[in-house]
Formats: sequence, structure tokens, C-alpha cells
Amino acid sequence: MNKKSVKILAALLILLQSSRSQTLSGFGESATAQQFNTEKKFDGYLDTGEIDHFIKEMSAHPHHVGSPGDKAVTDYIYNQYKSWGFDVNIETFYVLFPTPKYRLLEMTAPTAFKASLMELPLKEDATSNQTKEQLPTFNCYSPDGDVTGELVFVNYGLPEDYEYLNRLGIDVRGKIVIAKYGRSWRGIKPKVAQEHGAIGCIIYSDPKDDGYYEGDVYPKGAYKNEYGVQRGSVMDMPIYPGDPLTPGIGATRDAKRLDRKDAANLLKIPVLPISYHDASPLLQSLEGPVAPEQWRGALPFTYHIGPGKTTVHLKLEFNWDIKPVNDVIAKMKGSEFPDEWVVRGNHYDAWVNGANDPISGQAAMLEEAKAVGELVKTGWKPKRTIVYCSWDGEEPALLGSTEWVEQHAAELQQKVVTYINSDDNGRGFLGVEGSHALEPFVNEIAKAVTDPETGISILERRRSHEMVSINNDPKKLKELMEKKNISIGAMGSGSDYSPFIQHLGIPSLNIAFGGEDGGGEYHSIYDSYDDYRRFKDPNFEYGLTLARTAGRATLRLADAEQLPFDFTSLSKVINRYTNELQALLDEMRENTSVQNRLIKEKDYQYASDPEKKLSAPAAKDEVPYLNFANLQNALDEFKKTTDQLSAALQKQKTASPKIDSINKRLYRAEQNLLVENGLPRRSWYKHSIYAPGFYTGYGVKTLPGIREAIEQRDWNEAQQQMEIVSASIIRLNNYLHAIINDIH
Amino acid sequence: MNKKSVKILAALLILLQSSRSQTLSGFGESATAQQFNTEKKFDGYLDTGEIDHFIKEMSAHPHHVGSPGDKAVTDYIYNQYKSWGFDVNIETFYVLFPTPKYRLLEMTAPTAFKASLMELPLKEDATSNQTKEQLPTFNCYSPDGDVTGELVFVNYGLPEDYEYLNRLGIDVRGKIVIAKYGRSWRGIKPKVAQEHGAIGCIIYSDPKDDGYYEGDVYPKGAYKNEYGVQRGSVMDMPIYPGDPLTPGIGATRDAKRLDRKDAANLLKIPVLPISYHDASPLLQSLEGPVAPEQWRGALPFTYHIGPGKTTVHLKLEFNWDIKPVNDVIAKMKGSEFPDEWVVRGNHYDAWVNGANDPISGQAAMLEEAKAVGELVKTGWKPKRTIVYCSWDGEEPALLGSTEWVEQHAAELQQKVVTYINSDDNGRGFLGVEGSHALEPFVNEIAKAVTDPETGISILERRRSHEMVSINNDPKKLKELMEKKNISIGAMGSGSDYSPFIQHLGIPSLNIAFGGEDGGGEYHSIYDSYDDYRRFKDPNFEYGLTLARTAGRATLRLADAEQLPFDFTSLSKVINRYTNELQALLDEMRENTSVQNRLIKEKDYQYASDPEKKLSAPAAKDEVPYLNFANLQNALDEFKKTTDQLSAALQKQKTASPKIDSINKRLYRAEQNLLVENGLPRRSWYKHSIYAPGFYTGYGVKTLPGIREAIEQRDWNEAQQQMEIVSASIIRLNNYLHAIINDIH
Repeated sequence: MNKKSVKILAALLILLQSSRSQTLSGFGESATAQQFNTEKKFDGYLDTGEIDHFIKEMSAHPHHVGSPGDKAVTDYIYNQYKSWGFDVNIETFYVLFPTPKYRLLEMTAPTAFKASLMELPLKEDATSNQTKEQLPTFNCYSPDGDVTGELVFVNYGLPEDYEYLNRLGIDVRGKIVIAKYGRSWRGIKPKVAQEHGAIGCIIYSDPKDDGYYEGDVYPKGAYKNEYGVQRGSVMDMPIYPGDPLTPGIGATRDAKRLDRKDAANLLKIPVLPISYHDASPLLQSLEGPVAPEQWRGALPFTYHIGPGKTTVHLKLEFNWDIKPVNDVIAKMKGSEFPDEWVVRGNHYDAWVNGANDPISGQAAMLEEAKAVGELVKTGWKPKRTIVYCSWDGEEPALLGSTEWVEQHAAELQQKVVTYINSDDNGRGFLGVEGSHALEPFVNEIAKAVTDPETGISILERRRSHEMVSINNDPKKLKELMEKKNISIGAMGSGSDYSPFIQHLGIPSLNIAFGGEDGGGEYHSIYDSYDDYRRFKDPNFEYGLTLARTAGRATLRLADAEQLPFDFTSLSKVINRYTNELQALLDEMRENTSVQNRLIKEKDYQYASDPEKKLSAPAAKDEVPYLNFANLQNALDEFKKTTDQLSAALQKQKTASPKIDSINKRLYRAEQNLLVENGLPRRSWYKHSIYAPGFYTGYGVKTLPGIREAIEQRDWNEAQQQMEIVSASIIRLNNYLHAIINDIH
Repeated sequence: MNKKSVKILAALLILLQSSRSQTLSGFGESATAQQFNTEKKFDGYLDTGEIDHFIKEMSAHPHHVGSPGDKAVTDYIYNQYKSWGFDVNIETFYVLFPTPKYRLLEMTAPTAFKASLMELPLKEDATSNQTKEQLPTFNCYSPDGDVTGELVFVNYGLPEDYEYLNRLGIDVRGKIVIAKYGRSWRGIKPKVAQEHGAIGCIIYSDPKDDGYYEGDVYPKGAYKNEYGVQRGSVMDMPIYPGDPLTPGIGATRDAKRLDRKDAANLLKIPVLPISYHDASPLLQSLEGPVAPEQWRGALPFTYHIGPGKTTVHLKLEFNWDIKPVNDVIAKMKGSEFPDEWVVRGNHYDAWVNGANDPISGQAAMLEEAKAVGELVKTGWKPKRTIVYCSWDGEEPALLGSTEWVEQHAAELQQKVVTYINSDDNGRGFLGVEGSHALEPFVNEIAKAVTDPETGISILERRRSHEMVSINNDPKKLKELMEKKNISIGAMGSGSDYSPFIQHLGIPSLNIAFGGEDGGGEYHSIYDSYDDYRRFKDPNFEYGLTLARTAGRATLRLADAEQLPFDFTSLSKVINRYTNELQALLDEMRENTSVQNRLIKEKDYQYASDPEKKLSAPAAKDEVPYLNFANLQNALDEFKKTTDQLSAALQKQKTASPKIDSINKRLYRAEQNLLVENGLPRRSWYKHSIYAPGFYTGYGVKTLPGIREAIEQRDWNEAQQQMEIVSASIIRLNNYLHAIINDIH
């Protein structure tokens, strides 16, 4: 056979394989055929031109919370849903949303310099000159403040950066710190600074992180130019998100509100973000020790830490207004199970124009909603109710979603099958985080959707990307090669899924494409349609791909005969997290032991350059062995149960009269993992498996109660949390066991 | 017991321990006492003020090969040795030493820019304005050339950088490359560029490597300012060092010389080093792909690779003169074994003033020689002859040492017990490379010398430094904690030991302090007394410590009753190298296999961003298993033999009549590791265990014949070399066995 015939044969084999009758999880044979037919039609309604149009329209003006631009987008979205036949309503909450009244940052010594605090309009960017409509550069929920102090550079402002400062004998008490954006969520930087006694915090974008070091700067390229500033919230969201004055309840007009000073998630020290144009003179003026290698950015001078002669004056005042946030909620009623809701959401408010964040995701979601409307026009109806949520007020603190979730908590815990979130979207690779019982479901969808750049499935492309990314680690690479599926990530925070999964235990997914859409426009005036069209998704094909992916997730969950939850995946992943914790503890134990020995034997002292005055780190208490037995036993039981449940569900007939009751119990199962009192010191977060990190912000901590106690070296709390997590797993185990009994 | 008494007791115990009678290796009890006494006196003659004075005098003027400044230093050194009672002579060789006649580097498109090619005198640096005496910035042994071409940035100019360019479809044929200093020895960069068809090569110092990224720049701090340029040789020294026209023979006045065009170690393409001031406009002008992360430096713009509109014109002409190099050879005749020589050397020629490189080492060596002279005045005489060699012409190509070694090869192989080298020296930690049979000897010395900054031994400080340096790797750290000794490194090239060990198989050591003396002055006009005094060794205490350390090595080897060679250390280290090679081969095999699979399954293609046009790497031939059996068997035998020899030597009486014959055979033993035909394609290098890397330059390759064949994927050659190395080990094994028989 010549090469050509081999190729043809291979192509035929692939065709054969894909046309082979296969049922979708949760669908019988005829339902599968029907579903494929529905999805084919659905795909047919999706159009890149329309996504382009949506993005252009909705990013035409700045539209932050409470602005006329925001209201215009609310109405635009409302009218779209309406025109597609949805039952739409706007639900309004009233939230604390401060905006800048006065901003001053100046260097007062050794030379005078006043920060411009200005992003420059560019002729290459049509909306960048809408100066009057733009929110000035600021960090939302910074308190008012008027502070003057010596300046200290604190790297990314992480707890370990302060440990290093401590070794240098540098104390930030009474001083103002300047930290780089990156590594931790921005709100963590002033929080940690405040814990260490700083009186003010400046956050700047170093060109190493998203400026010229990474690529050509805007408008020549996508990266941050010297004037670009990242706005953003610095509320302490790891305590609780949403309106700071109404924790745990909906911020309705007459809700009972805290006094602002009593809101536990509001900082006490003023914070301001600046550009590298404004940061350069401050940093260049610093004296004191040279910053260690990992602290250095890409500005063309030696980074020093300070303190010294450099003092700065930071004065900030805000309008502390209560503003409305308007969630647009559009329902398409289910024909068979109207009280089972598949909820799909994406926010629409932006810091400025937000073409990428969040309009790219909002546009894809609207395109999905439109296609659902078209399907309905052909006579199709979803079996379950589909709810599209266009959230307002995500940027300041997940306001719109959190207030809605808090307001309707009981109803949502009864009705919501799954919450499917998206946010910004661009060229590249599929990324999914979420409830691990949905991992096989996600894989099935990812196999069915084609990547527009390569023509292979988005699953295969994701796998290729992962494998090539670790191509210097043959061991990991071989493991990955053997594994045919993709893993979904665990959920931290950073978008509107947080209240659903972490507060209510509702199964959730977050879907985005990216990795080839790098740039420095995030939360700046340059996150514009012009930028998006050049650097993010020029042909809007990944917008379309997102609509295909999230649309399939929505449609399959709406129409599945048996809901496709697979708790064996959850069991595996919790086992993995547990193994990680054991490894972490062992590693900490070994590390602590050798470090303490180095400290005791004065090796740090002997190795150090006397001119550098870097003292040894402090010795730490030795790491004990913890009792993992209860957790391991619970997980062993849980594995058996989930295997049995999986087998039982496999055998369950779709015609079974019990199937709806089983389905309801399946989608409510994850709520068993909630812990009534929540996580230590932050009771709003109730999920025992997933939470944003107390000191990472957006970054997830899995088994957070145990993991963070270990990281903070609180061994008693770690052991207590181990028992709490074990109890939640036993609870879920028993719950699932009851389902098995019911199926049989 | 209270804390204070515990401390006093501990101090007493330490005192007791150190005063406990212990014999030195190679010395009996009374000889040990005598030796300690000699060393105590020796230490007493050493004086930091004098080292300061020597450095100031010898670095007062530029003194490169053939310059009046150089001749003045020759005479200065000659007179010093003479005044201390040495038998001194100046031995002159006549070598090819090109100096710049014409230098032009200009950008011709897209904009015009002419490189300044100038280092700026500074008022803070007293000798920096000796412009007329300074050699202009250049790379020595660059050919004449006049080339114009498109510019391509090639990172550090390593072979793997060209592999990456290949993946980008960028071909340097007919183009001029610009490479960063660093990672490989500078001569490798144009060599590899030439192999890939480039027509010219520019080498610049990126501020990330030794400029503002690392620390404040000169004169505020020690690092390279924007005008600093690193001069240096680009002769292909991995082929052979020394005068390019007289390989293998002394370049006496009437030696038979090659025609310049036939010298295998001379490059064909012009090369010029420049500052980052001059490099910035060229790099900033480049278009084409953005350089990957590992390629980027610290200049404040996006690094692109080119090629594109940027073209440069490089024109270089040199005076191709034959110049004298004057080695100053000072002998102190041995009282018992005048024909056994302990040779101690350091060069004195510099690229410019060279306060650090090499005068700091030369000054310490002169201080040692002075102290030896003082000792002799008290009536002490070395048993063996001590030879101090102040080398000329090291900078261009190890000229002075290589020609002397080639001229006196037979005599040196008969007489030299050990060659002890030093070069530049500064604050910090002990570093020693050399013949591994001397590792215990070096440890014994390192235990006896006190570190001036901490008061502990230089051995303990080195260990603390090593442990703290790997403090994030508990496994390695624990290994290091258990090991009470320090390892000595294997010798590559870069200083005058190379002809001794690699051409003649003479046991060698190279000793230096450093690690706290970072800066950017290397081979620039800023390597001055003013710079040295501020940033390298302000109190000249590490100069003194070098004199104590190298002085002890010299004195102990001169007076040892039994020479302190321990071949069990060599056996261990060759075993380690062999294990490394097996691991390397296994790793390459696994890597190649998974990479080829990624390539075959098109994962690179699927993972790549279509806008970036980065193709998959080329598939490589799979890695076979090689037969290590002969080498392993030889090493097994060798281990037994060295253990037996060690035991036999332990028992040998110092009064044995055979001891001198045994000693002679011990110091000549390493010559058995020489391979008659040398390494493949570079027969000058004859040592089968140590060599500078063909593609690293200074960097050592151990078991070089085998290792480089494996790295180049020449499996047949690797197997052949394995047999050659095995034979050399068997030869040494049999030689040592004969010694054992003779002792018994």
C-alpha cells in the first residue's frame, strides 16, 4: 500500500469510529440521537459575526457598576433575551460601591515626584479616549487615607516576602509598601501588608510580568505599555464576597446592613494601583539591600528594597455610595422538570470597556441563549428549565451573583442542577474547573467540540498542550501519555461560580479558552474592542467554541434522562488531595528538620556575606505526624460506595419511575460536603473540599481547612479539620448509599 | 550546669581536640611538629599591607602582552624574586598576538547607528583614564573581516539556541549574529556561529548577566555600567591553547611555525565584543519572533530574534604581530630532592590593569614566595625544589604557561610533583579544582586555614556555604550534612593549569576564593585597584588566606616524607563519573523516546500557536544501550588496587629506603591516564578523565571522550572511547599494583 492509500484508510477508520453508534452519558440510544440532532441545530445557529457584534456593542462604553454605560448594557441584554423568547426579569440589589473622589501619590524625598495616575488615550484605540466615562485608576474598597512614610519594596507582597524582610531586619511598621502585581490575588497584598503594620500599599505592574519583557506593548503589541494600570478590587474576599454590608443575605433595598467599620472584609490601609511609568522613579530612588533575584523586575535599574531616604505621601478619598446592581435573569421553562434549573452565567459589568473581561464571555453566552431561543422556535423545549444569568457587579466583589445566591439560597439548593460559568475568553486551549463529579461529563463534551485552529477536538488539543508544556519531564510526560482524559481544576475564586459552589454546594463548572491571548490590558482602558479584535480572538472563533462547549453542557444537563454525575471521579480526586497533604506534611517535616539543623549549627551565619547582613531564618517548630486514619477510612468507604453507585446507575433504566427522584438526589449530593460552620475564621465558605486560599485570594486550596492549618503550622486545627472533612465525606457516603439502596 | 558553664566546657573540649597530637598526611610525628612550626613562621611573614602594595604596583598601568606596562611588571616580579633569594630567570617565547588596527560596527538599516566601542574613564577610578596605554575593546584572535548582513539575536550562542532558531525557520547563513556573554566560554559563540554559516559575530554584555540587574553599576557599585566591555580571547582553545603557530612545541625564536591560515584553532569569522550601550539600538531595532523567556535580558524593551530590516556592518583589522611573552621562573633548590619540583604559578599579564584578574592572585603568590625567602633566611630549606612561575600571556591563550610546558615537557613529566595554580581572587569561599588523588590533602589544608570573616576554618565555611546554597533540597542537604569533607572540582580550562594536567598528566591544583566578590569589571578598564579595594577584597585578607592555603600546599608537598596522593579518592570520583554517564544515557534514551512520540503524534504541531510558527523539533535517533562492562570491570579492579595501595602506604615506614622511588612513582602515576593520540579531533588534550568541553570552552567535561560522544549522539565513538578510557584505567591500575608489590 502506498502512503496515500494508508492515509485514506486511516481517515475511513476514523470516520467509521466516530459514526459508530454511541450513547451519551445520561441519554439512552434514541435520546442520544435526538440530542445530537438538537446540538447540530444549535451549532447551526451560532455565528461569529454576531459574537463580534455583541462584543462591539457591549464594550462601546465604560460600564462599571452604577454607571450610565452599565445601565445601557443591562437594557441591551434584557432586550436581547426578551427578543429570543425568554422570560426575563431584572433583579436589583443595593450594594456599597466606592469610587474615587481624590487620589494623590507623591514622592516627598529625596526628590519630589508626583505620580500621573493617568492612562493615556491612544489614536489606535477608539474607546481609549472616553476619559469622562472611565473610572480613574483605583483599587476598589481601599479605605480613605492620608499617609506619609518611608517606602519599602516588598516583591509580590506574599507572606514569605515578609519573612525575607525579617531576615534583613527590615520592619514595615509605620511604612508604605510597594508591591508588584502578580503571584497572589491583589487583595492579599494590602491585607498582608496591614498584618505586618504597614500604613499604606502601592501596587504596580512590573514590565516583567505583563509589559515589554513579555512582548511588544500596546498598541504595537498586546502587552502593557508604561501607562497601563490594573484596576481591581481589594476587598478581602477570602473572608466573604458580595456586598460587604450584607454578608450572607441578599442586599435588597431594606436589608439589614452592617456599619461599614464592622465589615470584616474591608481593609484598614489605603491602597492604590499604579503604572510602571509612575512606579519607576519611586523604585529607582530606593536604597538599602539589593533585592534578591526572584524579586527583580524588568525596569532598567537595580532593584533595592529600602527603606531609606525615600518617602511617599498617599492620599485617597472615595465616594462611599450605595449603588444598584442589576442582574438580568432569563428563563426558558423546562417542559418536564420546570423546577430543576440548569443555570448558566457570565457577568457583564466591567472596570472600563471590558471587551475581553467580561464581554467576550457574555457575548458567547448571549449567542448560546439566542440559539436556545431559535431551537424553541422550532418546537424543541428543554426538559429542565434553563436560566441565563447576566450578572452585574462581578468586578468589585462578585456582587450581582453573590447577592442573588444569598437571596435565593434555599430555592437554589433545591432546584439548581449545575451552575455553568464563563468570564473572559480568548484564543487557545480549553480550561475547565469545577465539581469533579462532572469530570467525565466535561471530557465527553470536550471530545465532541472541534478546535478552530487545528481541526482536532478541544480535548486532544488540550492534551497536546499539556504534554508539550512539560516536555522536559519525561516521567510526568509518560504518565500524561497514558491518560486519555483531561483533568478539570478545582475552583478557587475570581468569578461568579464562587457563591454557588462554595456557599451553597451547588455543582459548578467554569469554562474558558486561553493561553494564546496573552497581553497586559486586564482591567485597564486598553481592554477594548480594538485590542480584542487584534490580540484576543481576531476571528471570534473561540467565542463560538465557548458557545459550543458551554452550550452543550447546558443542553445536555437540561435534557439528560439520568444526570451525568460520576462520584468515582470525585473519590479519586479527594484521594489525590489527601495524598498531596500527606506528602506536604512529610516534606515540611523533612525540610523543617534540616533547616533547623542548619540554623542550630550556624551554617546560615557562616555562609552569609557579612556585608549583606542577612540573618538566618527563624527556627520553626518540628512537624508532628498527624492522624490521617479517619480520613483514609472514610475515603476507602467512599470509594466503594461510589463504585457501587456508578454500577447501579449504569444499570438503571431510563424508564425507571424513580429516575427523577434519583436525579434530584444526585444534583443535591455535593451539598453534603458543606460544613455548617464553614471554614475557620470565614464561615461564609462552607465547602470542605474547595475554597479560595486565605493567603492566595483567587488561588484554590483543596481540602482547605486541613491544608491551610498545615501551611500555617497549626497542628491542632489541622487535626480538627481532618475530622470535620472526614465527617463530611461520611455524610456524602451515606447519602449516596441511600441512593444505591433506592435504585435496587 | 548553667548555660555559661556548658559553653566553657564546649570551648575547652574543642581546644583539647585541636591540641591533640595528630600527624599530617605524609609526615611522621616529628616531621609533623616541624612542619607546623615552619607553617607558623610562614604565616608570620604574610602581610596584607604588602599584598595591597603588590596589587597597587602591578595594576598601576595596563600590561597586556608585548606592552611596555607588561615588561615593567616582568621586571618588577623578577626583582622581587631576586631580592628574596630565588634563582630567577626570564624565559621568553615568541607568539602570535594580534591587536586592533581598525574597528567599525555600524547599523546600516533601518536606521543608522555607529557603535562607540569605547569604555568611559571615570573620575572615581584613577587608572581608567590611561586611554593611550589601554588595548581597545576587542576579541583576541578574531580574523580580519569586512562583512555586512542582516542581524540575528542568538541568545548565548549555544548549539541548542540554534536548534531553537531552526524550529523557527531562522537560518543564520550569510548573516551576522549577536550573542550575549555568558553560559559558554566566549570563544565557543563565534565557533558555533561559524559552524552554522554566520559571517560575523557580535558578543555583548547584557545587564541581566553582570550589569544593573545584578547590582548597582560602577562606580556606585561593582557591576558593569553601560560602557563596560569584556575583552577576551576567542581562539578555539578546546582544540589547543598556546601559540596558534606552534602547537605542541615551545614557541622559541626559531621554532618551526605554521602558516596562520593553517592554525586549526583560529576562527574564520570576525568577532567583536560590545557594551550594552552599543548593543541596545541594534537589539531594539530587531523584528521577527519575540525571544523566548530564557533568551531575554534586562534591557527595557521586548527582545526580538530577527532577522528583518536590521542590517549591520562589521569591519575589523588587526596587527598580526609576533610578540614576546616573558615567563619569570624563580627556583628555590630542594635540599634533599632537587630534581623533584613543586611548581606554583599565576599569570601576571592582564587585558588592561587587571587588579583582580590576575594581579590579586599574583600578589598572593609573591607574598608566599617572599615568605619562603624569609624561611630560607632562617636556615630552613625545602626538601624538594620549589618553582614559582609568574606567567605572561595567559589572557590571549595561556601562552606563557603552554609554551613553557611544551618546551620542557619531558623534564616536567620527570620532575614535577604537583602544579599549584591560582589566578584572580576575592572575598568569599574556598574553591579548589584538581587531581582527585589530592582531595584528602586539600581537605587537610582547608581544615587548617582560618576564614577571616567568620573565624571558622575555610573548610567549614565552604561546607556551610554549600549547604545553605541548596537549602531547598532536603535530600541533597542531608547527604551533604553526613559528608564532613569538601569535594574538589574537575579541571576544565581557563587558566594556566591546563597544559600541566591536560597535556602532560601532571597532578594539578587550582585554588581561589570568591563568591562575595561579584561585579562586572572582568576584562574591562574597570578591573582596577580602585575597584578591587572597594568590591573584591577590601582588607586584602582573602589575598592573605590564599597565600596561607596555596603556601601550605606548596610547603607540605615540598617537605612531605611520603607524598600525600590518595588514589582511592580518584577511584571514587571516576566511578561517580561513570554512573553519571549511565544516568545521562538512560535519561537521553527516555527523553528521546517520549519526544519522538510527541513529534510523531503531532502534539507539537497541535499545541503550537499558529501565529507563532514554531515547528516541532526534529526527531532524533533512538538511544541504544552501550556496553559499560569493560569500564566497570576496570574500575572494580582499580578500586581494589587503590584500597590496597592506600593500606600499603599507610604501613610504609618513612625511613624506608624505597620511599623516594615510591614517591617519584606516585607523582608520575597520573600520566598513565594520558591517551597517546589524545581526544578525538583534538590530540593536544591527552587526559582521559578531564578536559575542557568542545562546546563549553572553559567548562569541564569529565571522561570527555565518552561524554562528548554521547552528547553528540555518536554511539560508535562513545563505545570506542569507553574502551580507550578502560585501557587507561587498567594502565594506571597495573602501574599502582607494581608500586604495592614494591612496598611489600
